[in-house]
Amino acid sequence: MNSELNYSTLVKKTIRLALLEDIGHGDITSSLIVPHSSKAKARVFAKEDLILAGMPFVKEVFAALDPDVREKTFFKEGTALKKGDVIAEISGRARSILAGERVSLNILQRMSGIATLTRTYVEKVSGLPVRIADTRKTAPGLRFMEKYGVRTGGGANHRFGLYDGILIKDNHIKVAGSVRKAIKCAKKAHHLMKIEVEVKNIKELNEALDAGADIVMLDNMSPEDMAKAAGLAKGRVLLEASGNVTLDTVRSIAETGVDIISIGALTHSARAMDISMKITRSKQFP
Amino acid sequence: MNSELNYSTLVKKTIRLALLEDIGHGDITSSLIVPHSSKAKARVFAKEDLILAGMPFVKEVFAALDPDVREKTFFKEGTALKKGDVIAEISGRARSILAGERVSLNILQRMSGIATLTRTYVEKVSGLPVRIADTRKTAPGLRFMEKYGVRTGGGANHRFGLYDGILIKDNHIKVAGSVRKAIKCAKKAHHLMKIEVEVKNIKELNEALDAGADIVMLDNMSPEDMAKAAGLAKGRVLLEASGNVTLDTVRSIAETGVDIISIGALTHSARAMDISMKITRSKQFP
Amino acid sequence: MNSELNYSTLVKKTIRLALLEDIGHGDITSSLIVPHSSKAKARVFAKEDLILAGMPFVKEVFAALDPDVREKTFFKEGTALKKGDVIAEISGRARSILAGERVSLNILQRMSGIATLTRTYVEKVSGLPVRIADTRKTAPGLRFMEKYGVRTGGGANHRFGLYDGILIKDNHIKVAGSVRKAIKCAKKAHHLMKIEVEVKNIKELNEALDAGADIVMLDNMSPEDMAKAAGLAKGRVLLEASGNVTLDTVRSIAETGVDIISIGALTHSARAMDISMKITRSKQFP
Amino acid sequence: MNSELNYSTLVKKTIRLALLEDIGHGDITSSLIVPHSSKAKARVFAKEDLILAGMPFVKEVFAALDPDVREKTFFKEGTALKKGDVIAEISGRARSILAGERVSLNILQRMSGIATLTRTYVEKVSGLPVRIADTRKTAPGLRFMEKYGVRTGGGANHRFGLYDGILIKDNHIKVAGSVRKAIKCAKKAHHLMKIEVEVKNIKELNEALDAGADIVMLDNMSPEDMAKAAGLAKGRVLLEASGNVTLDTVRSIAETGVDIISIGALTHSARAMDISMKITRSKQFP
Amino acid sequence: MNSELNYSTLVKKTIRLALLEDIGHGDITSSLIVPHSSKAKARVFAKEDLILAGMPFVKEVFAALDPDVREKTFFKEGTALKKGDVIAEISGRARSILAGERVSLNILQRMSGIATLTRTYVEKVSGLPVRIADTRKTAPGLRFMEKYGVRTGGGANHRFGLYDGILIKDNHIKVAGSVRKAIKCAKKAHHLMKIEVEVKNIKELNEALDAGADIVMLDNMSPEDMAKAAGLAKGRVLLEASGNVTLDTVRSIAETGVDIISIGALTHSARAMDISMKITRSKQFP
Amino acid sequence: MNSELNYSTLVKKTIRLALLEDIGHGDITSSLIVPHSSKAKARVFAKEDLILAGMPFVKEVFAALDPDVREKTFFKEGTALKKGDVIAEISGRARSILAGERVSLNILQRMSGIATLTRTYVEKVSGLPVRIADTRKTAPGLRFMEKYGVRTGGGANHRFGLYDGILIKDNHIKVAGSVRKAIKCAKKAHHLMKIEVEVKNIKELNEALDAGADIVMLDNMSPEDMAKAAGLAKGRVLLEASGNVTLDTVRSIAETGVDIISIGALTHSARAMDISMKITRSKQFP
Repeated sequence: MNSELNYSTLVKKTIRLALLEDIGHGDITSSLIVPHSSKAKARVFAKEDLILAGMPFVKEVFAALDPDVREKTFFKEGTALKKGDVIAEISGRARSILAGERVSLNILQRMSGIATLTRTYVEKVSGLPVRIADTRKTAPGLRFMEKYGVRTGGGANHRFGLYDGILIKDNHIKVAGSVRKAIKCAKKAHHLMKIEVEVKNIKELNEALDAGADIVMLDNMSPEDMAKAAGLAKGRVLLEASGNVTLDTVRSIAETGVDIISIGALTHSARAMDISMKITRSKQFP
Repeated sequence: MNSELNYSTLVKKTIRLALLEDIGHGDITSSLIVPHSSKAKARVFAKEDLILAGMPFVKEVFAALDPDVREKTFFKEGTALKKGDVIAEISGRARSILAGERVSLNILQRMSGIATLTRTYVEKVSGLPVRIADTRKTAPGLRFMEKYGVRTGGGANHRFGLYDGILIKDNHIKVAGSVRKAIKCAKKAHHLMKIEVEVKNIKELNEALDAGADIVMLDNMSPEDMAKAAGLAKGRVLLEASGNVTLDTVRSIAETGVDIISIGALTHSARAMDISMKITRSKQFP
Repeated sequence: MNSELNYSTLVKKTIRLALLEDIGHGDITSSLIVPHSSKAKARVFAKEDLILAGMPFVKEVFAALDPDVREKTFFKEGTALKKGDVIAEISGRARSILAGERVSLNILQRMSGIATLTRTYVEKVSGLPVRIADTRKTAPGLRFMEKYGVRTGGGANHRFGLYDGILIKDNHIKVAGSVRKAIKCAKKAHHLMKIEVEVKNIKELNEALDAGADIVMLDNMSPEDMAKAAGLAKGRVLLEASGNVTLDTVRSIAETGVDIISIGALTHSARAMDISMKITRSKQFP
Repeated sequence: MNSELNYSTLVKKTIRLALLEDIGHGDITSSLIVPHSSKAKARVFAKEDLILAGMPFVKEVFAALDPDVREKTFFKEGTALKKGDVIAEISGRARSILAGERVSLNILQRMSGIATLTRTYVEKVSGLPVRIADTRKTAPGLRFMEKYGVRTGGGANHRFGLYDGILIKDNHIKVAGSVRKAIKCAKKAHHLMKIEVEVKNIKELNEALDAGADIVMLDNMSPEDMAKAAGLAKGRVLLEASGNVTLDTVRSIAETGVDIISIGALTHSARAMDISMKITRSKQFP
Repeated sequence: MNSELNYSTLVKKTIRLALLEDIGHGDITSSLIVPHSSKAKARVFAKEDLILAGMPFVKEVFAALDPDVREKTFFKEGTALKKGDVIAEISGRARSILAGERVSLNILQRMSGIATLTRTYVEKVSGLPVRIADTRKTAPGLRFMEKYGVRTGGGANHRFGLYDGILIKDNHIKVAGSVRKAIKCAKKAHHLMKIEVEVKNIKELNEALDAGADIVMLDNMSPEDMAKAAGLAKGRVLLEASGNVTLDTVRSIAETGVDIISIGALTHSARAMDISMKITRSKQFP
Repeated sequence: MNSELNYSTLVKKTIRLALLEDIGHGDITSSLIVPHSSKAKARVFAKEDLILAGMPFVKEVFAALDPDVREKTFFKEGTALKKGDVIAEISGRARSILAGERVSLNILQRMSGIATLTRTYVEKVSGLPVRIADTRKTAPGLRFMEKYGVRTGGGANHRFGLYDGILIKDNHIKVAGSVRKAIKCAKKAHHLMKIEVEVKNIKELNEALDAGADIVMLDNMSPEDMAKAAGLAKGRVLLEASGNVTLDTVRSIAETGVDIISIGALTHSARAMDISMKITRSKQFP
């Protein structure tokens, strides 16, 4: 779901919260050292190779702080950068640039980290008819930004939250009593939604197929079972592999014939990329 | 700064934002499958060895969702858990437990990840008179939670934001013109604050000592230069090492005699710990 | 979508807004005439025959104003009441009862009006395999309450908003270029959603069937065309009749074989039921 | 009270709530079918004869959604339109127009319905020295918009809420003990306010006159009693008729000599007018 | 207007703002020195003679900070206290008491200052049929608290704001063109309000009487002119004296026969009373 | 701490609250008398000699009400004005000017009162090496504005709140057990802060010096004791005199050799200056 309205609303809320926790009652150091009227230029640059993601959010950071700060970007989102590449040039009041520096970099480092890790997974399965997808295992408050990072790295988004898709998981099945009963309940949904169900073995897969599931998630199955599942269900329902996927195992999982591979680590365990901001010029106006 | 007032205010805001982005207009799946009156019990358990951190925030998640949900915890924060250990038991309305599951686990996995990584660093320097400290390189909106994760792992907190300490960094020095000039400006601060300055070589260190800095951060210096710095400044000012610290290098850095080692990776690149929640019992009330 | 979380959030917001616009800086009359410590009992009663709907919202009104006000209800929602029936008894501080009187009655009169009109339609098609459904033509801010009124009267809810279902309408088709092209685009949606499309003639119906629509809305078609459409599409897709449905025409439309009849008038043109509140006892405490 | 400040504040709140409940996390259909850069023109037109009211609120809807959408209106508010008349032309981003369509029409249909019904009542009493006024029986959250609809139809507004005028009703009298006692209490109000009291018979009218009421509301009285009341009180106080006024009875009530006739049905039971929006042109920009 | 609803809403907002600006990210000193579990008792006492006002707001301060803090008060509001009198005893968590100390005292000192000054004025005119009233010259955000202080000291409240009474001042007359024209416009107000007009000489007073004003404010007139005004208008309209009233002149002004004397200094220039809080006992719980 | 970010945030909140409490649902008088399209010019002028302070906040008032209002100022903040001087000219919509008049003047009168009183104190100690400082004894919600008033009058600001400096007061010492113990606890603060402690006699001063305090506040000491304290501690720590400072005693206190004299009366007991606004021209546009 690409709703601009709420996408931007939630991102703006997170950014304001991040500025609030970092700046609080104010940046004491800058207020003492940097004259009110000083203008500056700063460069943001990559300190290692990375896939760039996050500059639109950096613009939101400065827009929230000071609408007169300008950002000039030199690469499109998703570009593979080399160590030393200048990502952007920020210009405006020096105090505003310094107040937004850390929050901007924290976002850029994290989203580029996610895009870079996603790209690595996507390249591992190149040539195969499978999508690398994210999960809801994102940092609290950063769901939209992190899923953007995954898209920028070439991955696909799964549902955004509990509100935009029916996905019956193990705990629902536990409450309902069985895969069959859970699917039967879900069929009471309004007529515009499909039903995905998580299964942990071939028996449950068959139950799901019988009960009329539209999509089946194979949870933590062995590659052998996944291949068997694909044999049984391919074409009848969409198949999603999930659980314990690593860079070492992703290609062999893809080769079992599943349609989607979803990976929590894309968002919850990506390493931050090393990115810095340096003021290159400053001058004081009267 | 340990202010309960705002600590809890900011944490509550982040948790509400996280619930908002995950639940949105509502959990469709549960509303179809889980009867309104169903009660359930669920267990949260470790799927790998880890240092536990984050249960207080999990309680906040359920408090925000449904004040009738109860959490029983089995270990103190900071305890080293083994794979399989049951961390907590959650009981209450099944819909509420399911609505809070993902946000709870996202927090717990991340904070335990930070505590676990911090503990590893702390153990690397055991026996040496040095503190492992965090930085402001935290996920946007999660500053307070992540710094709690660091404390829980045995690390020390640096300042919380731009508002609670003067730290003159390279960009301030660039604007001011020199280390000396920057420190002179900072001395105009109200009389209740000390002054820390970042230097990148021995020459700047001497300038900082002359100008009356209280604390000096050695930025990205070689171990040799750090040792030299310690020789010059030990006892006159507090010394902080920063930049490119890894598990391989941290002990040799500590041995140079610095007082504090600050490490961005504690918060920006900790891997999430594997933690799950399973419903163990459910029952429907009329 | 039955999300309690946001259902109640939005209802609470509307109720607060309604209290704000009615009470503003305060109820001058009561503050002058009714002693601060006066307690009272009031009866809410039907002044004409009606289907009762809205008491849960009346409880929210008083909860927002004064948590010590108590409401005792005498009938279940959806009950057919006779003129003179006492719906509820409200007791508590007299000022609180008077401050909430008008907003409570405005809600109760409107929701009972909607339930009553819906019941009339539902009874017109009794015995036929068709659902009477609402639309998004609701009073601004009252979507959830009004759709509750429809359910209470025995109708079915269509989607709640633009966010919980794909419905391709004439204006989308205009932008896309054709029914076929619009459906093709919609197929890029994430795999968990079905696709409904609005058609205005048999030609467009065929196009929709070919392109793989899941549900088809027949917009303002004549009964003859609707019957023809049912002949072509019954069983392949779900059929929804929409536009210019009246109490006089609803049964003949139902007899064409459509699955759903959606009616804007249920919410946008229901007459308010006549309901009053009378204080029956009051007494002042010291 | 014509306060621009709060008039617009409350209207803006209602419109945001209406957009929130309709759009939620986003318009899925448009996000799939309508390219981000598409521009469109749409026409809003009357599908039946009506008195136009509500276009200023439609402008607020689009202003809240997208400040770049433009509205061109072709008739002044309060104009009697014929079926087929084009009310306005909306142009801008196609996604914004589609996102605001339903909320805009819901407002326009409702306010035009109120204006149209009000005009009918006003015309019924033409030539007589009486004002047709509204009440506080408005849809929750829509007080200001609906009272605007009444004014646009040629009616007069009564007080806006409990905060801007003293009106002693039956329940106040019940608490106070008598009409006389209630008026005596109200006289303690600050010196800038007058006092209106509701009476249900000639005896109470006389009590109100004696006690010094400034305005008297005749509640549900017979035309004969109203005429008698006018004979007694005309010129001494202002007289307001209220209760069970219909298009059939309004003129004979007016002829009794009352000064104001207030009618709840103007706002609580007006039928929505039939108004549509059609996209007439769309084009995609690169 | 005595609306509890909004009275308390606005007071709560001001108190939260005051706590926010005083505590910000937290009380550093207490967090270091006062153990989390310490309990304490503190006494609030008068350090000079004063009229007590403001304890209800002190309760709001602690309620906002920590619902477990208890306040025991020893005197009714409006009591004349002697230096040394113990006003209240506060008990609860020591950190909460210390966090609320300054804001509580700031309110108590200011409101008692206003009550004390008002009482002095009221005593100056004792025995005369005149009311000492306040104005809108209050500290921003403290209107309700300060008008409470005036009432507590025995004064009367004028209107609370621009929203609850018509008062035509010199600037309105300037825009309207004349006293007569301004009053004529104001007569278009809804029928529930009276009209007060400010005049600066006898000529304008006559104009106001002719045009039908209900109340006349004599602005900065000499005692002789006020006496003349009283001769002309006493009994026909209410007369209010305003401008340059001091403790030396107030009685002679009252003796001219005016009905109300309004004094800005009651709120804008009252000296703060000297009041302190001392912790009398503290103890730490495990 | 001069943080623009939060300085302006808190000031904006206070100003909105002040407008809310004054205007509420709207300015009835102006809405009746002043045509919607009227433009006006108004002059703000001093009615007595004063030090000007507060015009930046007046600009915020009108910015919050109506961005099209323009203010032209004729003097710099801190200028000594004579009775009759025109401070500013306000131009724009007449309704906006009238709606903002009272709140603007309330701020301007108060801040100029504070600046004027501060200037008087500062002049009393001219030539001596001492700073006149404010305290936290400010009107609730006006901390930032009032401390600005002090600076404008030539005074110095002490800490802004509990969050930006450690100050151990009598109540902390009571909880800790002794001056020594309290200072020891405070030393656990993060390394960037100094420690100030309040003492009431020479014995406590010596204890504070021994325990390593950085600043000592001499609370309510006699001039003789203050001189003795200065003899003991001058140069070792900074000395602050506090308590019962008046215009009569301030110079002799300064002569004891203390570094700072802090005075609560600067903010809590300054008399409002007399300042008015007069509309000088108005005209109506079609």
